[in-house]
Amino acid sequence: MTARTKGQVHIIGSGLLGTSIGLTLRKIGVDISLEDSSPATLKLAIDFGAGRELRPEDDVSLVVVCVPPDAAADKVLEALERFPNAAVTDVASVKSAILETVREKAEESFRYVGSHPMAGREKGGALNGRPDLFVGRPWVIITDEAAETEVINRVEALALDLGATTVRMSAAEHDSAVALVSHTPQLLASLLAARLVDADESALGLSGAGLRDTTRIAASDPTLWLQIVSANSERLVPILKHFEQDLTKLISALDEPGATGSLSVIAAALSKGNLGIARIPGKHGGNSTSYARVTVMIDDKPGELARLLTEIGDAGINLEDLSLDHASGAWIGLVELSVLPETETELIQLLSKKNWKLAG
Amino acid sequence: MTARTKGQVHIIGSGLLGTSIGLTLRKIGVDISLEDSSPATLKLAIDFGAGRELRPEDDVSLVVVCVPPDAAADKVLEALERFPNAAVTDVASVKSAILETVREKAEESFRYVGSHPMAGREKGGALNGRPDLFVGRPWVIITDEAAETEVINRVEALALDLGATTVRMSAAEHDSAVALVSHTPQLLASLLAARLVDADESALGLSGAGLRDTTRIAASDPTLWLQIVSANSERLVPILKHFEQDLTKLISALDEPGATGSLSVIAAALSKGNLGIARIPGKHGGNSTSYARVTVMIDDKPGELARLLTEIGDAGINLEDLSLDHASGAWIGLVELSVLPETETELIQLLSKKNWKLAG
Repeated sequence: MTARTKGQVHIIGSGLLGTSIGLTLRKIGVDISLEDSSPATLKLAIDFGAGRELRPEDDVSLVVVCVPPDAAADKVLEALERFPNAAVTDVASVKSAILETVREKAEESFRYVGSHPMAGREKGGALNGRPDLFVGRPWVIITDEAAETEVINRVEALALDLGATTVRMSAAEHDSAVALVSHTPQLLASLLAARLVDADESALGLSGAGLRDTTRIAASDPTLWLQIVSANSERLVPILKHFEQDLTKLISALDEPGATGSLSVIAAALSKGNLGIARIPGKHGGNSTSYARVTVMIDDKPGELARLLTEIGDAGINLEDLSLDHASGAWIGLVELSVLPETETELIQLLSKKNWKLAG
Repeated sequence: MTARTKGQVHIIGSGLLGTSIGLTLRKIGVDISLEDSSPATLKLAIDFGAGRELRPEDDVSLVVVCVPPDAAADKVLEALERFPNAAVTDVASVKSAILETVREKAEESFRYVGSHPMAGREKGGALNGRPDLFVGRPWVIITDEAAETEVINRVEALALDLGATTVRMSAAEHDSAVALVSHTPQLLASLLAARLVDADESALGLSGAGLRDTTRIAASDPTLWLQIVSANSERLVPILKHFEQDLTKLISALDEPGATGSLSVIAAALSKGNLGIARIPGKHGGNSTSYARVTVMIDDKPGELARLLTEIGDAGINLEDLSLDHASGAWIGLVELSVLPETETELIQLLSKKNWKLAG
């Protein structure tokens, strides 16, 4: 693969995103320099192979600011001063405030185009950096009339080199979108998980996948998220207030389930949830190819899964997805195989012929 | 495997749970009869192999009532009349009201012990029935002074035969527990997903795993959940009100992020979420064995995954978990392998030696 990115890329901030960007770009031959306010973090990222230190003679073509949202605007302004030939972007999760500051304060602000890769993990830091972090994920490029086409192109080349899908939006559009699809779920997951702090051990013992999935992102870094949600509070508050109104209405109905109209309020809330989730694109949503799923029970010993998949592969059947779970305390391994619907019968016939234990 | 369950089991209601119970028990030689208010549903479950029709000469040992919560109490009362030698249980998600009705109205109510398998799917119906549904999941047995030991034992044998882990609780303890770990997440997921109904297509295009996971259960059946949450409203309302208070406080803080104390309110909400999620047992929670995860990129063609797993199996390395995702629109398959931490180095060395593309 030849890099679309030309020239040296300098990454400011070698945490999860900075390290992940460096790791991938170096693999396709891009010259990467790194800096970080913490010498230890910088050394770690360099040891990991994410890039090298900056040298005085370097001629940087693109600067990527990967620092926490609070510090991003200042680092972008500094970068525009320090690297006079470079395009500058940042990857912070909230874009309007940074854009305003940069357009107002920087003389050559046309060299700045903000961006936001929709990727991350619950755990941050260089240690968790990984080159696949951006693959197949949207990468928002913030376009406005002040941004130069050549600068937009350089940022877009970076995103494409990292395997992301680029999406152009204004800062306002972006911030409204993430308030809904990212920041609101984060806060509600945190508030829901907070209800568990004083829960009985025996109640928690009944937890299933529903609770785990609805609260998973509550494990995210509070310091980072404090910066994100306070920077985007203006757009978050109306959504949360709307949610609050719906919740208040639902609580009233549940408070008197026998009252006229109560059941229809509860039913409407549940049905509206069905409608909402159907609008989410992607594999769990309504707009995706839906796969047929076949569950197989396998012995929990080395080689069994391989034997299963070898037989599937030998038959020329392509798996679209696969998930494996060791049932807690049980000796059985359950493998859920997903295939295109037209392949389901063929898969089931194969598995039966080969004496695999089918579940269902 | 020899069944712990002795004698004939009669299942009333051949939907998801009834069919799944029948499928498993028949495999270990238990005589299963089925009935359903819908002849078509009954025929489907019988065709699936979940059991046979009831005969007049049958001597039923255990009746399992698997009908929607609204109908459960009546069906239990009927079953106690119709099957004078049988223990009777039900699998409804809310237990107090059914127990009260049965203890009050049935003469031989000592033959009834309620239960609740903590298992289900977003999709109901016999078509989605599967014998692995209960494996490794908690199965709550509702004990009170009126329940006979022999009856408790028969219900427990059933749960164990289905691979579940039995947990004894009072009806009140059970209903409080599920209000928190199951019914509250369901309602909040529905309300969150409802916010997406009017969202811009472009905003939804930025959805990631966070939104998908927090809303997944919003796809559940509204009719069933209407019955569940209204039957347990008394225990749900205080939890939802507590959540509402936390939300109101958070919204006020976000409304004026610059005011004294606002940031600490937001930070506290996020940190409390961290504490709460750490209390959830299981693989995503804090009390489980934590695995080391290694991500490998593989070509998206038949046999590649099998080759990877064969090599891992040949090396005697046991995978604890595995997940595979085809990045949307990309040619790369990402496989996340989980192993015990002490095996991580061995796995990485093996993969490098065999020239697999490691991510990270």
